[in-house]
Amino acid sequence: MTTEAAHFEAPRGMRDFYPAEMAVRNAIFDAWVRSARAFGFAQYDACVVESLDLLKRKSGEEIVEQIYAFKDKSDRDLALRPEMTPTLARMIVGRQGQLAFPLKWFAVAQCFRYERMSRGRKREHYQWNLDVVGEACISAEVEVLACACHALSLLGLNAGEVKIHLSSRALLADLLAKAGILPAFHAATFLALDKRGKMEDADIRRLLQESGLDSAAIEAVFRVAGIQSLDQAAAMLGEQTPSLATVQTLFRLANEYDLGAMLVFDIGVVRGLGYYTGVVFEAFDAERKFRALFGGGRYDNLLGDVGGAPMTAVGLGFGDVVIAELLADKGRLTGLQAKLNCAVGYMEDIQQPVARQLVRALRRSGQSVDMALHAEKPKQFFGRVGKGEFKKAIYVGPDDVARGIVRIKNLDDRTEEEKSLSDPVGR
Amino acid sequence: MTTEAAHFEAPRGMRDFYPAEMAVRNAIFDAWVRSARAFGFAQYDACVVESLDLLKRKSGEEIVEQIYAFKDKSDRDLALRPEMTPTLARMIVGRQGQLAFPLKWFAVAQCFRYERMSRGRKREHYQWNLDVVGEACISAEVEVLACACHALSLLGLNAGEVKIHLSSRALLADLLAKAGILPAFHAATFLALDKRGKMEDADIRRLLQESGLDSAAIEAVFRVAGIQSLDQAAAMLGEQTPSLATVQTLFRLANEYDLGAMLVFDIGVVRGLGYYTGVVFEAFDAERKFRALFGGGRYDNLLGDVGGAPMTAVGLGFGDVVIAELLADKGRLTGLQAKLNCAVGYMEDIQQPVARQLVRALRRSGQSVDMALHAEKPKQFFGRVGKGEFKKAIYVGPDDVARGIVRIKNLDDRTEEEKSLSDPVGR
Repeated sequence: MTTEAAHFEAPRGMRDFYPAEMAVRNAIFDAWVRSARAFGFAQYDACVVESLDLLKRKSGEEIVEQIYAFKDKSDRDLALRPEMTPTLARMIVGRQGQLAFPLKWFAVAQCFRYERMSRGRKREHYQWNLDVVGEACISAEVEVLACACHALSLLGLNAGEVKIHLSSRALLADLLAKAGILPAFHAATFLALDKRGKMEDADIRRLLQESGLDSAAIEAVFRVAGIQSLDQAAAMLGEQTPSLATVQTLFRLANEYDLGAMLVFDIGVVRGLGYYTGVVFEAFDAERKFRALFGGGRYDNLLGDVGGAPMTAVGLGFGDVVIAELLADKGRLTGLQAKLNCAVGYMEDIQQPVARQLVRALRRSGQSVDMALHAEKPKQFFGRVGKGEFKKAIYVGPDDVARGIVRIKNLDDRTEEEKSLSDPVGR
Repeated sequence: MTTEAAHFEAPRGMRDFYPAEMAVRNAIFDAWVRSARAFGFAQYDACVVESLDLLKRKSGEEIVEQIYAFKDKSDRDLALRPEMTPTLARMIVGRQGQLAFPLKWFAVAQCFRYERMSRGRKREHYQWNLDVVGEACISAEVEVLACACHALSLLGLNAGEVKIHLSSRALLADLLAKAGILPAFHAATFLALDKRGKMEDADIRRLLQESGLDSAAIEAVFRVAGIQSLDQAAAMLGEQTPSLATVQTLFRLANEYDLGAMLVFDIGVVRGLGYYTGVVFEAFDAERKFRALFGGGRYDNLLGDVGGAPMTAVGLGFGDVVIAELLADKGRLTGLQAKLNCAVGYMEDIQQPVARQLVRALRRSGQSVDMALHAEKPKQFFGRVGKGEFKKAIYVGPDDVARGIVRIKNLDDRTEEEKSLSDPVGR
């Protein structure tokens, strides 16, 4: 790429959506919105500019370092939000007395992170947020997961192609406690375990050591992290705890939604954000070629922490970048740019009013129609409109006007049909 | 409002969209997108973060003062875009060799301006941008205006309720030249005349004086600004000029689209942005209670100025704030929040699987369905779902399961129908 061309690019890490990319984005957004509506979620939104203070108090540590922060002309500390959940918490707490709970809301929110760029990591992306607030039952997690899977199926992805890895921070805490790790060390242990797969185990041991764990405790942590199944977890606990029962129930309910085939128990899922308290999950393509498609979990303390009445909540964030990579990899992003129904052209200025009346009639009938902006020779017109953008084309010449007819050319199969100029949409 | 509540508000000038406000926004966006598609425009978008340099070079002076600018961690000068047109120009120039012209594109773009707040002035809004690039004929202006009027009609507004005030900077320049104002003073004169209605005439005279016009020239400017009709403009010019002919043709073509009744010649329309070169227009509610609904015009130099090959263009920006105020004023914003098709509840955990199967069948049939997240007593369930959010409700109790039926209650008229549990969607 020449420097000249680079001059016309979007700022580093930001995306331009030319019509072809926009068609992909619209297909993804459409699957999100249709799924959320089918599941009875109500749409909300908020400005991408948020108060820095709210974000600092309520986002994960890693996120705070990556916030695009700036001051406005009144010296207010503002930021481009890195995630939607603190904003959701703020909005709910702001009207906590008037809203009816449990509440099911969704948003398609642009989020920004200043981070080093690699495949699938832009500095901005859109994220589908799906949250249930005010419901303690595990059925909230199930609805959220089922809705996300509905969106996957609308995008043509099935249970063989995506796996949802699921665990529970509450269960992990119980397991750590059972293994002798004091609760005071749990937060640091979660943070360290969340790095598994991204860091060498030796480095994770070092992190745990720095957090104050001795080598026996560190071995205990790794024994817990080595659990392969819910049965193993049950055996290690040696008793039925509420945290274990919750996860077991979730797997049972998931089967009622045919989610079972997609769901995998994975003690290694911890999530980086500090606010999760219960079930946590992350979805990946089955071949693990890409980063997480979506992730989420239960966060029972956030509303209270933000300053509202304590209230339980479950949420999911599903970004537009990784899903687009996966769909592209599977060849499912072709033909998304809808063809326009019809292009209308005309030979001489004198036919322009007739062509325009025709266009009005076609548009009124619900068709998408491009009206030529000046007179063209037939060759010029058909050359311009015959590049795959249109399904049909109508070219108005003096003979058509004299005969009172329109010739509708099907650009796919090159057939032509005649209709009356006075009733161009009729059969 | 208490300080406590204020703490949970969006940053000053930024908007939260709770579901009720989101329904209004969606109705407006939907009219924009449907109209643009009916008229054959292709959708594009770009990140709201733009390079400050591009914006400084290409926006109006007033706008540059109001830009939300900031530096990223690599000391890049970035900004939240105040308008979409410079970004559009950048994107087109970046692929000028590959794109086919004339090109018709639209976007629904969030834009930011740091300005003093008053009614209808937020610091961010969404703007529908509709542009035709690479077409010199006045039919481009007509398509853009007709498309905007199509959106107005989808929103229930007719020609009696909105007026589009239209003029031409080229015509104004010819008139000023004829009145003896040298071209070197035209840009400053445009800027001064754009303030009419917002400033006293005495202040505008002072502005003109400061720009170097003597009092005879200032009187000449006001004579031109006092023109009431195209006929008067023609009389003052005393000859047929291309600029006059263009506007006359536009009015004739507009009649073919039934736009005539909405269109008013108004020499006072100049537009604040520096890049306009030809026809300019602004639409207002007929009673002039609100600020402009949309505005735009021809900008023939922008692509060249940005660094591309020179190319003619016409564009329109239509914000979401003023139209929402006008629709609210006319009482047209009721009933926009679509009811969900159905709420499903159940009495005891034992009926949950049956209820969930029912929900799956209804959702598969395309309905939007809320599934209860825990067992409820009938009174609790119907109290929760009977507040206008749902059209129908189904409550599954042990008797229903035993009899193999579902009772579907219509929440509007309180009627009830029975269907088979095995075929709840059938007739």
